[in-house]
Amino acid sequence: MSKQHTKHEITAGDEITTGPLPASQKVYTVPQDDAGLRVPFREILTSDLQEPSVRVYDASGPYTDSKQITDLNKGLPRHRISWLKERSIEQYTGRDLLPEDNGQAQGAYLADAFPIKHTPYRRTGEQPFTQYEMARAGLISKEMIYVAERENLGRQKVLHTAKQSLDQGECYGATLPNFVTPEFIRSEIAKGRAIIPANINHPELEPMIIGRNFLVKINANIGNSAVSSSIEEEIEKMVWATRWGADTVMDLSTGKNIHHTREWIIRNSPVPIGTVPMYQALEKVNGVAENLTWDVFKDTLIEQCEQGVDYFTIHAGVRLAYIHLTVDRVTGIVSRGGSIMAKWCLHHHQESFIYENFEEICDIMRQYDVSFSLGDGFRPGSIADANDRAQFAELETLGELTQVAWAKGCQVIVEGPGHVPMHKIKENMDKQLEVCKEAPFYTLGPLTTDIAPGYDHITSGIGAAMIGWYGTSMLCYVTPKEHLGLPNRDDVKTGVITYKIAAHAADLAKGHPASQIRDNALSKARFDFRWEDQFNLSLDPDTARSFHDETLPKEAHKVAHFCSMCGPKFCSMKISQEVRDYANKLNDKTQGMAQMSQKYKAMGGELYVDINQQKEDPKEPV
Amino acid sequence: MSKQHTKHEITAGDEITTGPLPASQKVYTVPQDDAGLRVPFREILTSDLQEPSVRVYDASGPYTDSKQITDLNKGLPRHRISWLKERSIEQYTGRDLLPEDNGQAQGAYLADAFPIKHTPYRRTGEQPFTQYEMARAGLISKEMIYVAERENLGRQKVLHTAKQSLDQGECYGATLPNFVTPEFIRSEIAKGRAIIPANINHPELEPMIIGRNFLVKINANIGNSAVSSSIEEEIEKMVWATRWGADTVMDLSTGKNIHHTREWIIRNSPVPIGTVPMYQALEKVNGVAENLTWDVFKDTLIEQCEQGVDYFTIHAGVRLAYIHLTVDRVTGIVSRGGSIMAKWCLHHHQESFIYENFEEICDIMRQYDVSFSLGDGFRPGSIADANDRAQFAELETLGELTQVAWAKGCQVIVEGPGHVPMHKIKENMDKQLEVCKEAPFYTLGPLTTDIAPGYDHITSGIGAAMIGWYGTSMLCYVTPKEHLGLPNRDDVKTGVITYKIAAHAADLAKGHPASQIRDNALSKARFDFRWEDQFNLSLDPDTARSFHDETLPKEAHKVAHFCSMCGPKFCSMKISQEVRDYANKLNDKTQGMAQMSQKYKAMGGELYVDINQQKEDPKEPV
Repeated sequence: MSKQHTKHEITAGDEITTGPLPASQKVYTVPQDDAGLRVPFREILTSDLQEPSVRVYDASGPYTDSKQITDLNKGLPRHRISWLKERSIEQYTGRDLLPEDNGQAQGAYLADAFPIKHTPYRRTGEQPFTQYEMARAGLISKEMIYVAERENLGRQKVLHTAKQSLDQGECYGATLPNFVTPEFIRSEIAKGRAIIPANINHPELEPMIIGRNFLVKINANIGNSAVSSSIEEEIEKMVWATRWGADTVMDLSTGKNIHHTREWIIRNSPVPIGTVPMYQALEKVNGVAENLTWDVFKDTLIEQCEQGVDYFTIHAGVRLAYIHLTVDRVTGIVSRGGSIMAKWCLHHHQESFIYENFEEICDIMRQYDVSFSLGDGFRPGSIADANDRAQFAELETLGELTQVAWAKGCQVIVEGPGHVPMHKIKENMDKQLEVCKEAPFYTLGPLTTDIAPGYDHITSGIGAAMIGWYGTSMLCYVTPKEHLGLPNRDDVKTGVITYKIAAHAADLAKGHPASQIRDNALSKARFDFRWEDQFNLSLDPDTARSFHDETLPKEAHKVAHFCSMCGPKFCSMKISQEVRDYANKLNDKTQGMAQMSQKYKAMGGELYVDINQQKEDPKEPV
Repeated sequence: MSKQHTKHEITAGDEITTGPLPASQKVYTVPQDDAGLRVPFREILTSDLQEPSVRVYDASGPYTDSKQITDLNKGLPRHRISWLKERSIEQYTGRDLLPEDNGQAQGAYLADAFPIKHTPYRRTGEQPFTQYEMARAGLISKEMIYVAERENLGRQKVLHTAKQSLDQGECYGATLPNFVTPEFIRSEIAKGRAIIPANINHPELEPMIIGRNFLVKINANIGNSAVSSSIEEEIEKMVWATRWGADTVMDLSTGKNIHHTREWIIRNSPVPIGTVPMYQALEKVNGVAENLTWDVFKDTLIEQCEQGVDYFTIHAGVRLAYIHLTVDRVTGIVSRGGSIMAKWCLHHHQESFIYENFEEICDIMRQYDVSFSLGDGFRPGSIADANDRAQFAELETLGELTQVAWAKGCQVIVEGPGHVPMHKIKENMDKQLEVCKEAPFYTLGPLTTDIAPGYDHITSGIGAAMIGWYGTSMLCYVTPKEHLGLPNRDDVKTGVITYKIAAHAADLAKGHPASQIRDNALSKARFDFRWEDQFNLSLDPDTARSFHDETLPKEAHKVAHFCSMCGPKFCSMKISQEVRDYANKLNDKTQGMAQMSQKYKAMGGELYVDINQQKEDPKEPV
């Protein structure tokens, strides 16, 4: 870590990373449509007064605001409580905490509870309540106004300059607007093409939108497990992941203390939190899949709804009828949730209780506006199993269930693979758009080869960039530890940065109207030898700076007009600048470029050719 | 480094990494068409006798053969000397070594010369001599037989098993054969669609082929610079890069001791060595671009031809007429060679002496069968500059020059970008195939965004995988230090592994008939919890093992039927195996799957559905 990071002690031995990123400050803008909202951005300052600062999307919450003090024991400000007045809600005495919620942990094994107990909210009546219902009813919520402002990166209109012309891109049927309005947000949510995952019991949240016509988002998984890691580490992982750009975080904890871990995370999280409720349900039956019941699962859903989980992965498409399709796979079933349900179904020889009770699940989730993330329990775990019948049979069921959930008023995204070779990626996207009626796609990678454990952030970053380009709305990160071990702090950062690259590459290729501004600013800084600006505009200023310092550690080198690759005499950027200066000088003098050309032509040569003419009438080389 | 590596001392203080990779042994096969050839492969052994070993392409040369002793002071065996009898050659007294060849280095600043002085060879007469000329004349060289065997990965025929079915892929007009014959090699070279870069003065070489209908290859750049690094480090970088899979290595040294550094590298290199002769030529005129002359450049070409450089990057497309097209770019000219020539052209207001003397350059290179790599001096250095008129004007000239070189009997590949957003990558490939008449494309990445210095192996790995899929034959690696500093040993490895991933992902997507064998073997090992096999079959066994050990260090865990992500109770792979066992058990008993289905249906449910039927007649969920 660089010296820019300050350590903010929360409890003995626990630390959390706060403070702004280098040369950055938190700024807030006020949307035109609601003067009461303050939407956060990160503004990266440049060293050259001639060069504008660059405003970027900022998922990191108050932790990077030097003017705000965060106290993990109190949680983040519950700023969205006042917004709830828009809707018919009630507070009620929630479900009691049960010993099994924390895996029967006792004494020294039981983690500290979050110090404050908030009374949960739920909907009352049948007025439009979820973002989907409000959108369908033509209502624009505060969350919709907030995310519209956020998606515009604080721009008032699209910037077009001669030197930094923005590209239209190729977006495969997506319809990215030049400027996002709250009404556009509403219409996209109403069509089911986007969601704002925002449980009413997570008022600490800074709302964000997931949809094909918006910036591509990324998710980071964290979570303790039976083998290692602690609550404190997981909270810092959440803060750390959002610092580098995670748009949502999934808490995939297993083992003991699941309830308490999640409470600490949600109360301190500025981003939506997702879970796989099945994991906790299984802990409640001591890890014996066949002992799972609908009652245990349902109780777990309510427990997590009341805590404020924003979206649930629900493996409702793992049907008894499809299990035999996985038997001849190279890697069978690799989804945890999928394998648990498959085992339950086979053991009882019954249809999945999740599938059977899907409507009741909808009824629970709509009380809190928890969004569905329909899980892909049969996602391929190897190149050999990609796009097979098991995978697509489940996807078709997820398409049906998407429409059931919509009919119930719920927001829905759909999960996707997994391991898929490049030539089979687009088929995944196209099929999902078709059978899930454009509900947002949320994929894990996909990994484009199986042969590089230790580098699966890269094997999957390739697939993630491509499927993001084709239309996936959110990319679930993969860390270097995938298949091998639990990610540590460095792995989380590497996974997040890799996926920010994939998402941004996708935004560029789709022609997002604001995405290229940062590329242009960084490249211009590079060409101008503004080293500090180049570092600060990058996704990871600390790493960029430290890599530079390995070769050229002296401060003076950061203003030098050369870089370490070529040395002082040899830098192509430097020579290229001389070329530009030379050309400009010729223009300034009476001997302009055109005159020089005339002179040169008179000598029998040619200075400038019309490229199009040259193309049609190629001159044979000497 | 793992304990598997042994350190082989060459001179005081210098070390080189030798010895096989984990669980691997060097094997040699004898091609049917020439009993005198021995073609190397790496065979990865598995821990399960039921599972076949996996034979993979091996670029690492004798350094990973435990039965061979390498002595850097002698160089590798010059095994290809005897092959030269096929051709009309002569030995002659080569050019004298001049002080400027090593940048006037003297005394302690002058590096040791390679201890042995070999007398150079060159062609005599006009019999077919280069691989291109031989192919055109219908002759099959030993090199062609060798690379045919190599491309088949030692297979005698395509393997097809039920569980490991191989995919056809999508290869955009490429025509990958199921089995590569020497005649196919010849025909591809004759069409200009492939090259075997193999200077007759580099007899230490193990020949390899670069072409769209073969395995995608990768290049690693090494080279000292004025700022840092030594000859010894560069040799180890070459050995290290090929250990991890670099198919060719470019020596991009600048500064002093260029001649001696290159000699040490070539004499010890099992892979083709490429250079940019302009770099050394510029050193000979003390780094002053405008002082370059055709004579200095020509002399440098001859010097390097005699040493054994296998391919030259020649920036012949940087024409005076195009320079003004770069003036309004965000990042101008970023190629070193391009910027040097642009400066020269502007200063003298003359057409490039490389372009003017292109035919004479061909005449020199055909004497030794040095291949052209036509350089892209105007490649875009930022997303904003991608696919612009400067870039494509140069590419069109490279297309013309490709045909000039072919007419002279030379082998040619063509270099490509650079920085290109995803949606503009395919246009690069398509245009190159069209204007260069299918001469192999050799690209640097491309980087798909500018905003991640420190991670440009990843931003470019995405683009490399895609352009490899679309038809690029060789991918020049980018390390994490790109734009920031000189790559060290770890950076070289990271760059090589990232590009092996990109190349392999491209092979899979193109449907290369043997490429999926390794994925399937690794995935099966993963599913079987054969941890050691999973590590050993991976591109980087050391990293995979060390990542696993961080979480579960005990040896016992490497045979455990669970992994650290989920813990002993929760592993989806384990549960999935139980599901499979359960299904098989049902089949074995009188209560087969079908009977269970009947029973279940009698109870009013359904157990199995025909997926296709289910698709057409979707049952509404409950």
